[in-house]
Amino acid sequence: MGVLKGACIFGQSGGPTSVINASAAGVFMQALKEDCITKVYGAVHGIKGVLDEKLIDIGQEDMAELELMKTTPSSALGSVRYKLADAEKDETDYKRMLEVFKKYDVRYFFYNGGNDSMDTCNKISKFMQKSGYEMRVMGVPKTIDNDLWATDHCPGYGSAAKYIATSTMEVYLDARVYDTGMITILEVMGRNAGWLTAATALASYKGLGPDLIYLPEKVFDMDKFLSDVKEIYAKNKKVIVAVSEGIKDKDGRYISEYGSDLSKTKDSFGHAQLGGLANTLASYCKEATGAKVRGIEFSLLQRCAAHQGSLTDINESFLAGQTAVKAAVEGMTDHMVAFEREPGKAYKCNTKLINLTEVANREKKIPVEWILPDGKGLTQDFIDYALPLIQGDSPLPYEDGLPRFAKLKKVFV
Amino acid sequence: MGVLKGACIFGQSGGPTSVINASAAGVFMQALKEDCITKVYGAVHGIKGVLDEKLIDIGQEDMAELELMKTTPSSALGSVRYKLADAEKDETDYKRMLEVFKKYDVRYFFYNGGNDSMDTCNKISKFMQKSGYEMRVMGVPKTIDNDLWATDHCPGYGSAAKYIATSTMEVYLDARVYDTGMITILEVMGRNAGWLTAATALASYKGLGPDLIYLPEKVFDMDKFLSDVKEIYAKNKKVIVAVSEGIKDKDGRYISEYGSDLSKTKDSFGHAQLGGLANTLASYCKEATGAKVRGIEFSLLQRCAAHQGSLTDINESFLAGQTAVKAAVEGMTDHMVAFEREPGKAYKCNTKLINLTEVANREKKIPVEWILPDGKGLTQDFIDYALPLIQGDSPLPYEDGLPRFAKLKKVFV
Repeated sequence: MGVLKGACIFGQSGGPTSVINASAAGVFMQALKEDCITKVYGAVHGIKGVLDEKLIDIGQEDMAELELMKTTPSSALGSVRYKLADAEKDETDYKRMLEVFKKYDVRYFFYNGGNDSMDTCNKISKFMQKSGYEMRVMGVPKTIDNDLWATDHCPGYGSAAKYIATSTMEVYLDARVYDTGMITILEVMGRNAGWLTAATALASYKGLGPDLIYLPEKVFDMDKFLSDVKEIYAKNKKVIVAVSEGIKDKDGRYISEYGSDLSKTKDSFGHAQLGGLANTLASYCKEATGAKVRGIEFSLLQRCAAHQGSLTDINESFLAGQTAVKAAVEGMTDHMVAFEREPGKAYKCNTKLINLTEVANREKKIPVEWILPDGKGLTQDFIDYALPLIQGDSPLPYEDGLPRFAKLKKVFV
Repeated sequence: MGVLKGACIFGQSGGPTSVINASAAGVFMQALKEDCITKVYGAVHGIKGVLDEKLIDIGQEDMAELELMKTTPSSALGSVRYKLADAEKDETDYKRMLEVFKKYDVRYFFYNGGNDSMDTCNKISKFMQKSGYEMRVMGVPKTIDNDLWATDHCPGYGSAAKYIATSTMEVYLDARVYDTGMITILEVMGRNAGWLTAATALASYKGLGPDLIYLPEKVFDMDKFLSDVKEIYAKNKKVIVAVSEGIKDKDGRYISEYGSDLSKTKDSFGHAQLGGLANTLASYCKEATGAKVRGIEFSLLQRCAAHQGSLTDINESFLAGQTAVKAAVEGMTDHMVAFEREPGKAYKCNTKLINLTEVANREKKIPVEWILPDGKGLTQDFIDYALPLIQGDSPLPYEDGLPRFAKLKKVFV
């Protein structure tokens, strides 16, 4: 395949992570080096920025600030949740994108996101091919949820897992200060896949983790849960429970929808209260045991805690962006960068390329054989899998005792 | 005053901090060095450990583990909330303590805590004096709330402030990823004093902080709050609000007691819902603006986040413990170690000793002249006060990518 000369656009999509900007830095720094890439643009709010022609000229940014993006959380360009229609049904958006691509001579499109975003990538690529517009489209993976198909793990997961495991260890110690009883419920993100909640098992591996861990991969049984909590409470006076926000009962109903006002919602399908799952379960535990309870939701903190990022994750996120650019320049298109772990005890991870069609709209859950029954945690297989991903401290620089995050000029074209 | 030979007991009291064990390390490491201190005991769960004769022999701990206590959160010995009766009314506990002190030849008592604990210290000391039992009693300050009287600041505050400011900056970035509107409410600890919530102003100082900050030092007006939120929302589409858990309305009612179910509690004094203040205010904001809202409670995380500790705070906490021992050995009793800042631009802090009677049961709030009206934040005076306290990174060591906290043997005597 010959050299394809033209501009590139990079966009960020879906929920942010604490290292999504490390992938952006990887794309930008590599693209700025490539002779065949004439201009490097960042799309503001993902494909919405393409449709609205809101593009910033990355060539005008300071290299030092691009470097700082490696340790700056959240999507520096702005993100979007925008589902493209099928081109067979409605071509409007695709035609508009083609118009913008032509106007700015864009021949490279890099998109950073999860399942949905890889679907978007795929659709755009297929439409441009059909239209006879030569371009190369590459997906860069990201998601704290770690649920992307065909990759060993996802950029963003390691840092979130490190933060969750660390905070769980700290809460474990804190929840034990008094000699009175207490039940603590930790609510972790993860609607369909339990990877993030499973990260609390890393704290257990260090002896400072939850007594019970519940993932969405398994049906949640409230009665069994309460009887297990009661038993541990009677024995230890302290119980720590970690739950995925997405746990459901046997009827497929989210436990978070039960609500914390037991009298109102126990036997009827009430509306979910703002209090959330942690407080809902805390209420049930309080009723069952009379114990002091506390619900803690890691909330947004778990996906933006750059101050506790994993160096491994930061480096791999950067590498994923860099690899996408290199592959596209070499002629590759319609693929997502993925990770493949080498067999053997020492952790070594290589990049590979996966066809977008294979990745789009598929989810990778935790293997059920890694999940112990009755909330009893995860097997050693999971620990061996996850531990290498959280290694190394973030090189986040500090100024006045606080993080110095990247400040982009954002010069619009 | 002559040399007083005998054993020492150290206890931890009240809510823990991420550096309370640094003070313990200061006491232990200094006491182990002093010739006149024959034995070093740690009381399990504070004075309850004294009453129950649950004492551990610190001399049997590894020095490396005592060193690790500097960066280990929560009370390693266990804490307690136990209010001693006035000795004039009931001498039972005091007599029992005297018995234990005599049994183990305890001549030094060090107690680490906040206002209540200094009161406890004071009562014990006065009773022993009255009983003719020679001993030296010293208080070591601690509280994330920073509300202890007669000291420039309290060990524990700097680390909590650093964590809160850092996390606020990260949430600020995360809450801005989409181009849709969002109102985020951050709930920070502090029942009567707003020092912790004020720490979010350090994030504002870096350009990544809340739009509105509400402290318990000022009356909270819901109508004014909602109209201010509406105005900012109309202008920016993003609003970030930081609130102290202890904010009250003009009738002295906690806002957290309003409850998040508006229909039920808006016009009647309903019971506080488990959902908490952040969700309560989020509900009100949602009703007033129709915006997407999110309540985030820093919860226990803010007081145990050793992974984001302030080196200044760690060093000063250690120094406070060390100073208490040195002063007691030199003949001092009935005092608490406090901090005094040297005048001038460069931060320099010295220890001083304050009579327990002066400290006990008094609270230090934020000077009202540091608080801008209508939730508009804090003045530069506050920034100048707080910024030096969060300087320096914690030297917390890692093992397998996770914190390596102290493990005490806890050999009971």
